[in-house]
Amino acid sequence: MAKSPETEHPVKVYGWGSRNSSGVLAPINFSRRETGDHDVQFKVLYCGVCHTDLHVVKNDWGSTQYPIIPGHEIVGEVTEVGSKVEKVKVGDEVGVGCLVGSCRQCDQCTNGLENYCPKVIWTYGSVYTDGTPSQGGYSNLMVVDEHFIVLWPKNFPLDAGAPLLCAGITTYSPLRYFGFDKPGMNIGVVGLGGLGHVAVKFAKAFGTNVTVISKSTNKKKDAIEKLGADSFLVSRNQEEMKAAAGTLDGILDTVSATHALSPLIGLLKPHGKMVLLGAPAQPLELPVFPLLTGRKAIAGSGVGGMKETQEMIDFAAKHNILPDVEIIPIDYINKAMDRLVKSDVKYRFVIDIANSLKPEYQLPSFMKFCMKSFVVILSVFLTFILCGFIFRYMRS
Amino acid sequence: MAKSPETEHPVKVYGWGSRNSSGVLAPINFSRRETGDHDVQFKVLYCGVCHTDLHVVKNDWGSTQYPIIPGHEIVGEVTEVGSKVEKVKVGDEVGVGCLVGSCRQCDQCTNGLENYCPKVIWTYGSVYTDGTPSQGGYSNLMVVDEHFIVLWPKNFPLDAGAPLLCAGITTYSPLRYFGFDKPGMNIGVVGLGGLGHVAVKFAKAFGTNVTVISKSTNKKKDAIEKLGADSFLVSRNQEEMKAAAGTLDGILDTVSATHALSPLIGLLKPHGKMVLLGAPAQPLELPVFPLLTGRKAIAGSGVGGMKETQEMIDFAAKHNILPDVEIIPIDYINKAMDRLVKSDVKYRFVIDIANSLKPEYQLPSFMKFCMKSFVVILSVFLTFILCGFIFRYMRS
Repeated sequence: MAKSPETEHPVKVYGWGSRNSSGVLAPINFSRRETGDHDVQFKVLYCGVCHTDLHVVKNDWGSTQYPIIPGHEIVGEVTEVGSKVEKVKVGDEVGVGCLVGSCRQCDQCTNGLENYCPKVIWTYGSVYTDGTPSQGGYSNLMVVDEHFIVLWPKNFPLDAGAPLLCAGITTYSPLRYFGFDKPGMNIGVVGLGGLGHVAVKFAKAFGTNVTVISKSTNKKKDAIEKLGADSFLVSRNQEEMKAAAGTLDGILDTVSATHALSPLIGLLKPHGKMVLLGAPAQPLELPVFPLLTGRKAIAGSGVGGMKETQEMIDFAAKHNILPDVEIIPIDYINKAMDRLVKSDVKYRFVIDIANSLKPEYQLPSFMKFCMKSFVVILSVFLTFILCGFIFRYMRS
Repeated sequence: MAKSPETEHPVKVYGWGSRNSSGVLAPINFSRRETGDHDVQFKVLYCGVCHTDLHVVKNDWGSTQYPIIPGHEIVGEVTEVGSKVEKVKVGDEVGVGCLVGSCRQCDQCTNGLENYCPKVIWTYGSVYTDGTPSQGGYSNLMVVDEHFIVLWPKNFPLDAGAPLLCAGITTYSPLRYFGFDKPGMNIGVVGLGGLGHVAVKFAKAFGTNVTVISKSTNKKKDAIEKLGADSFLVSRNQEEMKAAAGTLDGILDTVSATHALSPLIGLLKPHGKMVLLGAPAQPLELPVFPLLTGRKAIAGSGVGGMKETQEMIDFAAKHNILPDVEIIPIDYINKAMDRLVKSDVKYRFVIDIANSLKPEYQLPSFMKFCMKSFVVILSVFLTFILCGFIFRYMRS
């Protein structure tokens, strides 16, 4: 029989997770492995709340194994290191993003693209090499192979910086890989949420001209005045979209709901590329003609490898790129998830783990013994009473 | 009032074209401009029959203006050159592909990508700079600006070579641009028709390993034994497709009917690209997850620029790459179109224009005068008879 989450490893830990597809999060006690030779154990200080967390706890993608403890924008302070760890020492500030393992041997791994390794182990929801489920950062303690640890830059805020470990690398990597990082280029960002607002900041830091494309004008002021975007298009405004046709070199599309690609493809110059970062559950409609007539491309991109993640966080620190966050205690997480569904956050929730997470309340052992004994005695007593009544009834 | 096709230009020519969306082709007399300073006039010898011809004569894409004379795989012999022409001389063998004009000033044009110029003038179905409709190569004579003329390599067959001017460049250009031209790469070709069979030949000439993906086994023997493909997959055979998952660096998808992209995306390695060359009228279903998890891309590509078209034809001559063709007389064209619909050709029809095309038969002027006079006299005579009958009826 498989061991329970509490007993499968020797190190007792606690977090908030979901036990079923209601997606409701509640305290859970579980366990983590001892710090291996190449492992880094760290106390979690903050953890960002990603839209993926919401999809997974609700089993939107059909592959969730419960219980699940989400969280993959994790920062903290090293508490223990394995004997062969060279990268960090106790007391260092570190981060962990979306992945905690990969095969380390395939073409992807040897090229620093562990995120595309066929055997990638995601921070939560995967099966680790020891056969136990990986669990994320809505928890007090992490134990992670040093290869998947990001060194946190000195004096770079941990709380606001945490979301860079997913939202940051998810936008930075395609800007780099698809060559959207040349000063003067015209780059579009579709959707101004957790990913989108970070995409704007990185694209501006690269010196590009940024156009935000959103379905309403609600975020126009924020986009231009606060985030520094150069222009703003309302995707439903056909005149605006027509006037901007053929002007963009590249687009990062951060929308994870089903949406129309055709008007966005129209914004691209010939040979332009649109990169999808959101993951709609249903296929999108792809019009072929506009691709042919402009040699345009639609690509996908998912987070980034470890080398690039370190590069991204160092770049962010150098250019002071920080997500806009709302810090919450862990017991606000279900309300935060509800608000996330409505895009009611500017622009990322970050859980203050260190100051709000407590272990699942459990009765002391003696109290448990007393309660169990009381229930047994009460059952015996009631059985006697019942038998007495039956006996008297049969005699009368 | 707009002039008729026969009188809008001074040079009388003839061809076969369609007068309405029935798509039935019949002889048409029309006209072409005089040879301008930069123009090359040439006698058409052969013209390939492209699937696009079929779409356009039937107005499948909704933009056809009738009458339309199709044909954009045109080869012939120069009969006259303008005073400023430097590229060719009378008697040279030349070709014209899908385009005969562009703005020559935009970024696309100045980079040799006239095919992506927003003002590109297609060989047929466009409006030329003089305001008259462009008409294609199912005709005896072409007049084309020298910039859009391809010099035919010495001793390279004109008949079998003609389809390279569309099918050739349409497959060569994406193999080059998307980097599918490195020896040892694994390249897939979806669909083995006019485009697909040429794609296999070019991809093999680049030294890649070619996998043909088709919906049935019908063409397996041809693909392997005749065209030199290394392997063959039946797209409906899930086991075969699963076994080949993640093996291809790139795919050229030549299918112009609606079809599923998901199984094809599954064949790509991480960072692999699939290039769509066919133009389904309806949008295709695009699954996003498989793009994200492998940073894969779906692109489109349409023919190529003039510099690359010349490069392609020289490469083809050097490596003796020739489409497999069935030579037909012009009066077989409607039957050929029917067979094209059923993919019943291996693999391209080429019309022997010089030996089969005749002008639309027209009565000599004197005969026309006699017939008109006869009709007038007959009408007058019949009117008198009719009046006589009415007069007698009223008196009785």
